[in-house]
Amino acid sequence: MTRRRLKVIGIGAGNPEYITIQAVKALQQVTTFFIPLKGDDKADLHLLRREICERYIDHDRYRMVDFDIPDRARDGAYRSDVSDWRAAVRAIYLRLLTEELGETDLGAFLVWGDPSLYDGTIGIIEDLRAAGMEIEYEVIPGISSVSALAARHRVALNRIGQPFTVMSARQLEKGLPEEGNVVVMLDTRDAYRDLDADLDIHWGAYVGTEDEILRAGRLSDLQDEITDLRKKARAEKGWIMDSYLLSRRSDPKD
Amino acid sequence: MTRRRLKVIGIGAGNPEYITIQAVKALQQVTTFFIPLKGDDKADLHLLRREICERYIDHDRYRMVDFDIPDRARDGAYRSDVSDWRAAVRAIYLRLLTEELGETDLGAFLVWGDPSLYDGTIGIIEDLRAAGMEIEYEVIPGISSVSALAARHRVALNRIGQPFTVMSARQLEKGLPEEGNVVVMLDTRDAYRDLDADLDIHWGAYVGTEDEILRAGRLSDLQDEITDLRKKARAEKGWIMDSYLLSRRSDPKD
Repeated sequence: MTRRRLKVIGIGAGNPEYITIQAVKALQQVTTFFIPLKGDDKADLHLLRREICERYIDHDRYRMVDFDIPDRARDGAYRSDVSDWRAAVRAIYLRLLTEELGETDLGAFLVWGDPSLYDGTIGIIEDLRAAGMEIEYEVIPGISSVSALAARHRVALNRIGQPFTVMSARQLEKGLPEEGNVVVMLDTRDAYRDLDADLDIHWGAYVGTEDEILRAGRLSDLQDEITDLRKKARAEKGWIMDSYLLSRRSDPKD
Repeated sequence: MTRRRLKVIGIGAGNPEYITIQAVKALQQVTTFFIPLKGDDKADLHLLRREICERYIDHDRYRMVDFDIPDRARDGAYRSDVSDWRAAVRAIYLRLLTEELGETDLGAFLVWGDPSLYDGTIGIIEDLRAAGMEIEYEVIPGISSVSALAARHRVALNRIGQPFTVMSARQLEKGLPEEGNVVVMLDTRDAYRDLDADLDIHWGAYVGTEDEILRAGRLSDLQDEITDLRKKARAEKGWIMDSYLLSRRSDPKD
């Protein structure tokens, strides 16, 4: 059976200079880049991945294989939608690795941010391995959008002596954790609005890029402005990539 | 009043190649590096910071200012110990920035991992600014030990549709969060032992370095081995830097 060699490379979230030396060295070795086309951010993120290859690879012994990622259905139960979607993506990966990657090739998926945080690439590769496909692969960590948000706001994610939680907007709707700060990713529903607590927010869109927008302050003062900014940005660019840190104002100050 | 210019540079956790292009460019501009000497890991981490400067800076127009960080007292209440310790460190920073940094200099603190996660540098600078010191500064994100741990284990930090929490061992002793995976940092007390749940653990020490040790599996099978490995490693090197991911075995598989 053919052994496939792969790298899952975190390219950082936003600024092309968030990429690590380790990732740049890995890019140089890759023969075959698998570049996803996905949702509304298609054109921009697609371009960014290509730009990163052009900027950091000093030879032309590589090729790009574009592939479509289906939109996730949003009509059923959350977990079964995800599971159907994942099966579809798995089938696409299987085809890519079978048809596009030879024994002497080194393939790569370039992951926006960090492959370990709210990204499915590792999980899909592990599924294929569990199904018997022989894949040898390495994961290269990247600057997550969470780290980028905190750095641009010059703020710590955790308060001293307290935990820190990353969650989706869907989870935030079930309530804030009892203790500690929260970073919310993937909010398509303005879940920060009208929360039942007195909070500060550090919000950022397109963090680390030329289009970066940052706002920080008391959530109740800022939530309308942030909702407007999100709506406007989405209308102008066709997509938005944003996240925010929430912290309780009543907590003892660090 | 003299304006001070500073960069707080995340240099990544472990592998010197975790450093980003942005951080390398920043290193090149710095005139004055403030290098802490701290606790048992003194010699090794001190050396690593110097090595990073030597490896990535191609001129010699910079100097190193070593300074001692006091050990934190551990005899009182946790919060007041931290607050005393922090006041002492703040006084040291104040002296460094006043005596060692001129108007045309650019100072830097090199932070292991990511400056936004379980690191006090940003907080201390903000304290000094709040006290009236004029400091212009930028924070450069780094690969955290959390991202490094996940990458080396090739595992996602969060399960699909679930939150993910970072906490200290002290917090873990209060119990696991109701939902989602946990990464525990700064465990000096083997807090992973005898937890009241059926868990998998992904543990790593000196992650990303030549001395890296990784173990993954069912916690109840591994906890004795990990305790032994920690003890041995601490005895041999004089310090340990480790962290671990805990996930419930009864959770639905991704």
